[in-house]
Amino acid sequence: MRGLFITLEGGDGAGKSTQIRNIEKFFEEKGMTVTHTREPGGTPIGEKLRSILLDPANTEMEAVTEMLIYAAARSQHVRETVLPALERGEVVICDRFVDSSIAYQAYGRNLGSMVAEVNGHATGGLRPDITIWLDIDPETGRARATRDSGPDRLESESTAFHTRVREGYASMAEAEPDRFKRVDASGSVEEIKDEIYKLLEDLCLVRGL
Amino acid sequence: MRGLFITLEGGDGAGKSTQIRNIEKFFEEKGMTVTHTREPGGTPIGEKLRSILLDPANTEMEAVTEMLIYAAARSQHVRETVLPALERGEVVICDRFVDSSIAYQAYGRNLGSMVAEVNGHATGGLRPDITIWLDIDPETGRARATRDSGPDRLESESTAFHTRVREGYASMAEAEPDRFKRVDASGSVEEIKDEIYKLLEDLCLVRGL
Repeated sequence: MRGLFITLEGGDGAGKSTQIRNIEKFFEEKGMTVTHTREPGGTPIGEKLRSILLDPANTEMEAVTEMLIYAAARSQHVRETVLPALERGEVVICDRFVDSSIAYQAYGRNLGSMVAEVNGHATGGLRPDITIWLDIDPETGRARATRDSGPDRLESESTAFHTRVREGYASMAEAEPDRFKRVDASGSVEEIKDEIYKLLEDLCLVRGL
Repeated sequence: MRGLFITLEGGDGAGKSTQIRNIEKFFEEKGMTVTHTREPGGTPIGEKLRSILLDPANTEMEAVTEMLIYAAARSQHVRETVLPALERGEVVICDRFVDSSIAYQAYGRNLGSMVAEVNGHATGGLRPDITIWLDIDPETGRARATRDSGPDRLESESTAFHTRVREGYASMAEAEPDRFKRVDASGSVEEIKDEIYKLLEDLCLVRGL
């Protein structure tokens, strides 16, 4: 049986890492094997690409270049990590996937339809079974996020950029309500977890798990 | 006035580096400013991507990933290096461009039409004024090439791969005879230079240079 592919989306301070651990627990309690991975990265080649993407020194990076590097990392990740795990019947939980590129590049950087087109090639058409978008007001999220290091290249972007990104996610939630689920991330960790668990129970019901 | 964009194509041992120097000389003698660059690379970000592409350790690299990394390096190169030089009216001589991706990825790795599609986004539609393909039998070329270091990741490919690459170039020569010029690279350095200079004289005549 093909496994489950679950992706998490949401800006800084939305609490993705905490909720990913909760999702892992949810499936482990069902006795399922869970692979936890992230984008950009998730493979040795992908991690090398990730370090180019997030290096604050690469200020001259063009929007199209950035989009293509993300797509390259994704292509490797899908084929080397995600698909093999799904074929073994595992649950793959991925921190960010194609929707991040649509939100940050198509909307945030105004690259338009080329982002979906290129990413269709990068993924070979693979789509998540469910995508959980932890939605938080960009200002609140950034205030909440505490980091030892300074902001990376994407986090340093303007508020207008992050507002466009959020609008992108909102459009996806509207366009694909069965797959793309908005979860209000302004609440407590427990409240968010409860809402996610309800979504996962529904998914398992549909999939007979 | 917009400058001239000249690209060189051809496998290992075809003598590209030598002929690039001859082409530089041709235009410098006309008093034109020449920018010499190469792909993959040509920018700081592109050189970082190049080192991932050519590292023989990255044996697990998927064909689509490779294609996208080349396209990313190209996007940066076009916008950061090539277009600004052309806008200054310079002659840009580039060692490999989109046609390499068509030959090596669409033909060599059988990726088909996605390569042209993705590269159309990477270049924003920029096309060379002339492309000189130094054509040599793959076996002869590889025997001729002497290197201090071992072969890189692409050079290590099979003869069947390099034969498909050559077929790709041959198709381009047929499809775009005005831009894409085949030069027999089995002759002497002087013979090859003479043939290239004839092509460049024709180009300059058309362009009124």
